[in-house]
Amino acid sequence: MRKYAHPQRELGQRIRERRVEFKWSQEDLAEHANLHRTYIGAVERGEKNISLLNILKIARALKLDPSELLKNLTLPSDSSQK
Amino acid sequence: MRKYAHPQRELGQRIRERRVEFKWSQEDLAEHANLHRTYIGAVERGEKNISLLNILKIARALKLDPSELLKNLTLPSDSSQK
Repeated sequence: MRKYAHPQRELGQRIRERRVEFKWSQEDLAEHANLHRTYIGAVERGEKNISLLNILKIARALKLDPSELLKNLTLPSDSSQK
Repeated sequence: MRKYAHPQRELGQRIRERRVEFKWSQEDLAEHANLHRTYIGAVERGEKNISLLNILKIARALKLDPSELLKNLTLPSDSSQK
């Protein structure tokens, strides 16, 4: 099974793709999710280590189960593992 | 489909159940996930708005796909929605 080892970037891409399906601007998504437009931009670019509650806000706005946003995400391969 | 509107608490319970299946203490999980034992305790009690990367660390330690930890979680019903 494919794993996505740039989790923030992959999550951002999933959010962006779904937003575009809705024909929403980042500002539209921000408004629906009760978040700031610049924050949405940073999340989509993979620049944010987003929190659980913000994942849920975005998932709700995009009518997704939050599990769909995280499926197969994994830590970067250089991340320490025991 | 059942929805879990105390997302932090539900996530914490899922982590705890899986940890117990492994017969691990919170300290064992903390060590495997590279997190602090007191942090694991707070997450399991639903006291933390955990970040994406820490969700992934815990999922990896527990050999779960991160989507399993978030499945059907939703925001508290009193959370503002547009």
